[in-house]
Amino acid sequence: MIAITKQDAAPGLTIADVDQPQIRPDEVLIRVRRAGICGTDLHIHDWDEWSQSRIRPPLVLGHEFMGEVVETGALVENVATGDRVSAEGHIVCGHCELCRTGKAHVCRETEIIGVDRDGAFAEFVSIPASNIIPIPASISDDHAALFDPLGNAFHTVLHSDVAGRVVAVIGCGPIGLFAVGIARAAGASKVIAVEPTPERRALAERMGAHACIDPTADDVDAAIADLSRGYGADVVCEMSGHPDGLASAFRSCRNGGHVQLLGLPKGAVEINLAHDVIFKGLHVYGVVGRLMYDTWIEMRNFLAAGLLDIEPVITHRMPFDRFEEGISAMRAGEAAKVVLSFD
Amino acid sequence: MIAITKQDAAPGLTIADVDQPQIRPDEVLIRVRRAGICGTDLHIHDWDEWSQSRIRPPLVLGHEFMGEVVETGALVENVATGDRVSAEGHIVCGHCELCRTGKAHVCRETEIIGVDRDGAFAEFVSIPASNIIPIPASISDDHAALFDPLGNAFHTVLHSDVAGRVVAVIGCGPIGLFAVGIARAAGASKVIAVEPTPERRALAERMGAHACIDPTADDVDAAIADLSRGYGADVVCEMSGHPDGLASAFRSCRNGGHVQLLGLPKGAVEINLAHDVIFKGLHVYGVVGRLMYDTWIEMRNFLAAGLLDIEPVITHRMPFDRFEEGISAMRAGEAAKVVLSFD
Amino acid sequence: MIAITKQDAAPGLTIADVDQPQIRPDEVLIRVRRAGICGTDLHIHDWDEWSQSRIRPPLVLGHEFMGEVVETGALVENVATGDRVSAEGHIVCGHCELCRTGKAHVCRETEIIGVDRDGAFAEFVSIPASNIIPIPASISDDHAALFDPLGNAFHTVLHSDVAGRVVAVIGCGPIGLFAVGIARAAGASKVIAVEPTPERRALAERMGAHACIDPTADDVDAAIADLSRGYGADVVCEMSGHPDGLASAFRSCRNGGHVQLLGLPKGAVEINLAHDVIFKGLHVYGVVGRLMYDTWIEMRNFLAAGLLDIEPVITHRMPFDRFEEGISAMRAGEAAKVVLSFD
Amino acid sequence: MIAITKQDAAPGLTIADVDQPQIRPDEVLIRVRRAGICGTDLHIHDWDEWSQSRIRPPLVLGHEFMGEVVETGALVENVATGDRVSAEGHIVCGHCELCRTGKAHVCRETEIIGVDRDGAFAEFVSIPASNIIPIPASISDDHAALFDPLGNAFHTVLHSDVAGRVVAVIGCGPIGLFAVGIARAAGASKVIAVEPTPERRALAERMGAHACIDPTADDVDAAIADLSRGYGADVVCEMSGHPDGLASAFRSCRNGGHVQLLGLPKGAVEINLAHDVIFKGLHVYGVVGRLMYDTWIEMRNFLAAGLLDIEPVITHRMPFDRFEEGISAMRAGEAAKVVLSFD
Repeated sequence: MIAITKQDAAPGLTIADVDQPQIRPDEVLIRVRRAGICGTDLHIHDWDEWSQSRIRPPLVLGHEFMGEVVETGALVENVATGDRVSAEGHIVCGHCELCRTGKAHVCRETEIIGVDRDGAFAEFVSIPASNIIPIPASISDDHAALFDPLGNAFHTVLHSDVAGRVVAVIGCGPIGLFAVGIARAAGASKVIAVEPTPERRALAERMGAHACIDPTADDVDAAIADLSRGYGADVVCEMSGHPDGLASAFRSCRNGGHVQLLGLPKGAVEINLAHDVIFKGLHVYGVVGRLMYDTWIEMRNFLAAGLLDIEPVITHRMPFDRFEEGISAMRAGEAAKVVLSFD
Repeated sequence: MIAITKQDAAPGLTIADVDQPQIRPDEVLIRVRRAGICGTDLHIHDWDEWSQSRIRPPLVLGHEFMGEVVETGALVENVATGDRVSAEGHIVCGHCELCRTGKAHVCRETEIIGVDRDGAFAEFVSIPASNIIPIPASISDDHAALFDPLGNAFHTVLHSDVAGRVVAVIGCGPIGLFAVGIARAAGASKVIAVEPTPERRALAERMGAHACIDPTADDVDAAIADLSRGYGADVVCEMSGHPDGLASAFRSCRNGGHVQLLGLPKGAVEINLAHDVIFKGLHVYGVVGRLMYDTWIEMRNFLAAGLLDIEPVITHRMPFDRFEEGISAMRAGEAAKVVLSFD
Repeated sequence: MIAITKQDAAPGLTIADVDQPQIRPDEVLIRVRRAGICGTDLHIHDWDEWSQSRIRPPLVLGHEFMGEVVETGALVENVATGDRVSAEGHIVCGHCELCRTGKAHVCRETEIIGVDRDGAFAEFVSIPASNIIPIPASISDDHAALFDPLGNAFHTVLHSDVAGRVVAVIGCGPIGLFAVGIARAAGASKVIAVEPTPERRALAERMGAHACIDPTADDVDAAIADLSRGYGADVVCEMSGHPDGLASAFRSCRNGGHVQLLGLPKGAVEINLAHDVIFKGLHVYGVVGRLMYDTWIEMRNFLAAGLLDIEPVITHRMPFDRFEEGISAMRAGEAAKVVLSFD
Repeated sequence: MIAITKQDAAPGLTIADVDQPQIRPDEVLIRVRRAGICGTDLHIHDWDEWSQSRIRPPLVLGHEFMGEVVETGALVENVATGDRVSAEGHIVCGHCELCRTGKAHVCRETEIIGVDRDGAFAEFVSIPASNIIPIPASISDDHAALFDPLGNAFHTVLHSDVAGRVVAVIGCGPIGLFAVGIARAAGASKVIAVEPTPERRALAERMGAHACIDPTADDVDAAIADLSRGYGADVVCEMSGHPDGLASAFRSCRNGGHVQLLGLPKGAVEINLAHDVIFKGLHVYGVVGRLMYDTWIEMRNFLAAGLLDIEPVITHRMPFDRFEEGISAMRAGEAAKVVLSFD
């Protein structure tokens, strides 16, 4: 079959003809229809330090996708051929204490598709049946393909109660943009987006932000205080990973408030823990992946009910063999989310 | 001053000239502008069994209201003359273990204005400064007057997480109608109203209900199951107090779900605890009053942000001296909420 | 193999020679060493109304047990031959929304071993690998055999925070006795046992109860109020299922407190919801089974750490072929927990 | 009256004759009997950078104390002359949104006795009646004098569920030592103390630590992993404020676990947020003060029930005029907690 692959321990990606995956008795085979390009795919493309330490070529990339089930293993009961599905791409051990107590998202044996095993930028992908999520008819293929990053945003925003609260989203890449829409849909009284790029601030507004702050021009802390009766945001979602974003996150959160960290800083970051976390009595939460499978069911319910429209975040669509074009658009900051079609 | 009062231990209410209340050093005096009529006021009017056991005439009625501060006690720091305010009408001891640990709403020494001490159906009412809630300019007088019952609805709905969930509201009197709107504003994926009166079902629809069920014509459990992928409602708000409503509440809630009870049944009710609560693993919560003062701040934020419009619930407005007309409309089932003006 | 069975739709149990169970690729075969007799087994023995509606003979009884793994299916990775194990006896579908969101204990497709499929009163029992719990060497065979009812008690007590709180346990059968010990181990400041039988009150004292109340002689509500600074118990564990126990549970709980219901009343019960639940602002929780698998890991940790000694609850031990003797001791109220040996 | 005071903006403390405090109508006057010396008092003594920025001499020091009520203001209802009491030393505004929603411990208007207003190292101290906590007869004067730092420890440990869990306490000054005892009393399955000083490790053992690790000799992360089935601690209480302690806190916590930060680092600290917080899915909480007044009631209940004996932490007792001796013992690392007597 045809797939977008990393063939060698070097920069670049290649469209290659690879073997179709075999499934185990508890797995299913999916014919991929749509897939999203993630920042992680760019890192692997560029063969950066992280990629060099983690990726073992040859590898089929891709972890954001949807498609149709074409084969099921002998033990599979909950999924049938023909089902339209997406899937959790974190494949966990299932029997450690974390997996057994609702914390599978931090299982230490996690394998990620498109990173640690062959992924979904291909005609077919194999996935354990336990990871499969059926898609209601009312959710489009393009939207269903984005359940992975959308789930990151749901996990981040809904970790704290946001109804009637002031929510700040720092960093409006695709996941930040989703977060804006989710906070809005979940009844936040004010959603404040902090983002330096004008195009992304415009998208944040389309996703429902009540206020958009440009951190290169405005005093973020003062602006958020103004918008929150002087207290600071009740909930801050840090999606940038930038040292300035992190500093803002802690500073602009109200005393006793919640900071959810999703953006990944490179290397160590200096934090004034006494002043910015301890004396403020903050609750800080590290967000990784999606809750299995609470997040998936929430997300499906929001989309199926029409509470949230993620369409504005999809800025580019193209056939999979033009993926380099999508990567360029992302690199140029022109694209929010790029969806590839495989059919 | 002029007030609507219960003068004697007998049915009926009287407009009477009574002494203007004196304030203590930690209290404020409020000139009342608007007040809502509550079902409790009808009970007192009718001098029913509960009223006979609780009410000690003479008494000024009324506990849902807003007005303007005209005098403050010597120790009052947080409220000033001229402030536009509403107030929590449950006056608690402030120093028992319940009051000191965030559970003042169940303080055993609670005195309720208009029930245990003189209330707000009058030109003036005295209230401890700690109970005062300032009203933002964006909230109208009529809406601010309803913070008491609206707060009951907020307390009920937001006790459980409703974002993306199926919420059933059983019984659509004013508090049930508010609950419909709150669930909608807080991101419920489906809000189902159960109510026998067609007029109230119409109001529930205006408040945002996705589906309205007539329990006299439809199979409530089956209808709710249909609307919840077969599981039952994630959260059920029981606002009717009717034995059939209570039975429906437990039966139509999904396994492991949440039932919030606000409606007050008369006397004991038969419940099949084993089948309907224990085997289902339900969480049941008894709702009394409003959380002091989490509920008040949430409510103010929702209204000030325009997340919720309670206007449809106000079906009647009249000067206070026509209160009997309002009571009749309520008794006839024509009225949802009646607002009296005192200016 | 030899097993204790219900052969016909009639009272009585029979030791019979039955086929050894076959395992599926995701199951394991366990040679049973110890098993506990549960009240449920008495119901099936007596062929009561519930048994007639649920049990389909022929059936091997028994759901409380431990043993040694003697065979594993082809797909089993987390369990090995020779492992000393106990197991969750509720076998759930694994893929419904409840199973996928941490609420497998209320899965609607649950099959219970010894009730809906062949159980553990036999030389061998087959169990899905996902349900297996390995037993640390420091926990004895007899104690490990009781993880099922002990888990009911853990689920009940630890549903609420009990450290520093007053906990009342109403009904001191084996699960109530476990609950007393667990509340004590988890730092309750006062554990109050309510139980009419003097022998069981004596056992409750051995399990660590600070106070034992005889409901046939003492005023339960007054006694609990006296022991809780007048407020009532912070947490009440209702383990009797008796109408008087239930009434006490609601009445003796403090305002805003927690009532956990495990005991199963027969038929409907009259409850004064307004007075005893709603005005008190209670939190009521229906306890079924054990959380999968949070409860199991907690329980193992408590026992392995020596925080809790359940030895006093085991009043009788005997070889499995003398099971009728155990049942008689239970019926006579002489026995708390009876452990059968199968080796 | 006689008091221990900071007279000038310079190092040192002085015993001076100062005016007896006057009380407001909502305050009480307490004759001090016992007071504890805190590290904060040493900072003020030394006139360090923090003291220079915050303290305005002349000032009576001291915030850990107990005594007897000798006078009550006209509005005080819940406290009477002769009551034996301790008090929360954080005096908050009482009417901001934080104070009104159970987060008074992070009120932005907080004044601390002995820091921002005259404190308890004196014959008399004035305190708002709302801050007073009556002491049961079973709690000794010396122990009651330590409710302030003991409350810090309760707030820290009980922020997460510890029953049956592995708890690491990093840093065994007085508050760390209290934390060890509290974790033990609340049913932790393993309490691990990390502390370089042998004397303090010995005290940690007396307070109930199952294991004591010397970070100057042992591999802390490996040792904690060994004691937690390889997972890391479920709950880590960071009480040292030392950069190495903080690094250990994040590293030795299990995935999805809880880190409570109480120790105050000086200046900014480098943290590898991606690796040590985000990918691990940690919950981090900044601990300031005590919850008002949940912590106080919990603490009183633990001590009154005899669940916890804090006696080992009190290493020195002396009359108040020998306070310099106590300070020297603390500085030399000989003392854990020093209690001064004022009667």
